Amino acid sequence: MSDGYIEQLIKIISKLPSLGTRSARRIVLYMLKKRESVIPQLITALQNVYDNIKVCEVCGNYDTISPCSICTSTQREKHFLCVVQDINDLWALERGGLYKGQYHILGGVLSAIEGITPDDLSIDKLLARIDDENITEIILALPATVDGQITMHYISSLLKDKNIKITTLAQGIPVGAELDYMDDGTIKLALDMRKIL
Amino acid sequence: MSDGYIEQLIKIISKLPSLGTRSARRIVLYMLKKRESVIPQLITALQNVYDNIKVCEVCGNYDTISPCSICTSTQREKHFLCVVQDINDLWALERGGLYKGQYHILGGVLSAIEGITPDDLSIDKLLARIDDENITEIILALPATVDGQITMHYISSLLKDKNIKITTLAQGIPVGAELDYMDDGTIKLALDMRKIL
Repeated sequence: MSDGYIEQLIKIISKLPSLGTRSARRIVLYMLKKRESVIPQLITALQNVYDNIKVCEVCGNYDTISPCSICTSTQREKHFLCVVQDINDLWALERGGLYKGQYHILGGVLSAIEGITPDDLSIDKLLARIDDENITEIILALPATVDGQITMHYISSLLKDKNIKITTLAQGIPVGAELDYMDDGTIKLALDMRKIL
Repeated sequence: MSDGYIEQLIKIISKLPSLGTRSARRIVLYMLKKRESVIPQLITALQNVYDNIKVCEVCGNYDTISPCSICTSTQREKHFLCVVQDINDLWALERGGLYKGQYHILGGVLSAIEGITPDDLSIDKLLARIDDENITEIILALPATVDGQITMHYISSLLKDKNIKITTLAQGIPVGAELDYMDDGTIKLALDMRKIL
């Protein structure tokens, strides 16, 4: 640790999510050992993201253009709107490639503990979009937590006078999961919601 | 994941040690959200390390100068040489600040399984340093693994004709550790090496 530059880099990396000082040290040592193949490549990638990525003014996605390539795509269904908590949820849905509608990033969920109120989320924008874009179905793909459920109820209460279909993702046992590893809440829900084969 | 620049950055970060695709995604999303405060800072830190850090020609440490600030320090004992496996071990010893001698980075330990032979390690350089620098004590601070022990025996066999004190770090129960969590090997060693109070 004799040198300020190394310490500085370790400090910055250690503050990134899922990292700490020990893993930051390991990463920096790896970078130093592979400096020619790792450091310039990483600098270029960071610079490209910094220079080119912007927030989509319509849905809140990150892209090189705004409105983003999903909002402007002619290949996608314009009347379906999927509301997600954050961009990583959009990424997760896009990885599957099964959903072909529009998105709306809420920017969080309501939380009494964290003090997140409707004003902190892009709910007004969502309501405006539903009117402007002639949305026929809104899919509330928010987390299956208490806060997520409350937010879904709140949004659907705002929409109750509009002629719009409101859906949410199915809950139950994940594909490939073993019952033994499921929590009681999931097992209860899967039993209550059981389907006829 | 609609954009190439974001994917590219995720890919590079996911290959760093102790990270995978999921944590890389989380890190990139964090960077995008805090772009102004995180990305330029990280680019500068990476560029500084890339431009300024070199390998010390004497001990193998990373520093802005070569020979490094430890090798050239007038505050440090010149006749003690601590042999470590890699630079993170040097960092660990320096954090304590208790050792005030010189270092020698071996660059690994002998390993039959990984095919690491004496030629892969900086052993010749170590022998040359011992003669050139009038080293009086060499501390073999190599890992307490089978490969580490073999390497220590190998190095001490090379030095047996030289008039030099060869030491190794004490082994036993770590400070603050509970016996219950110690492996049998450590307990046996700690018993065998027990000291009179």
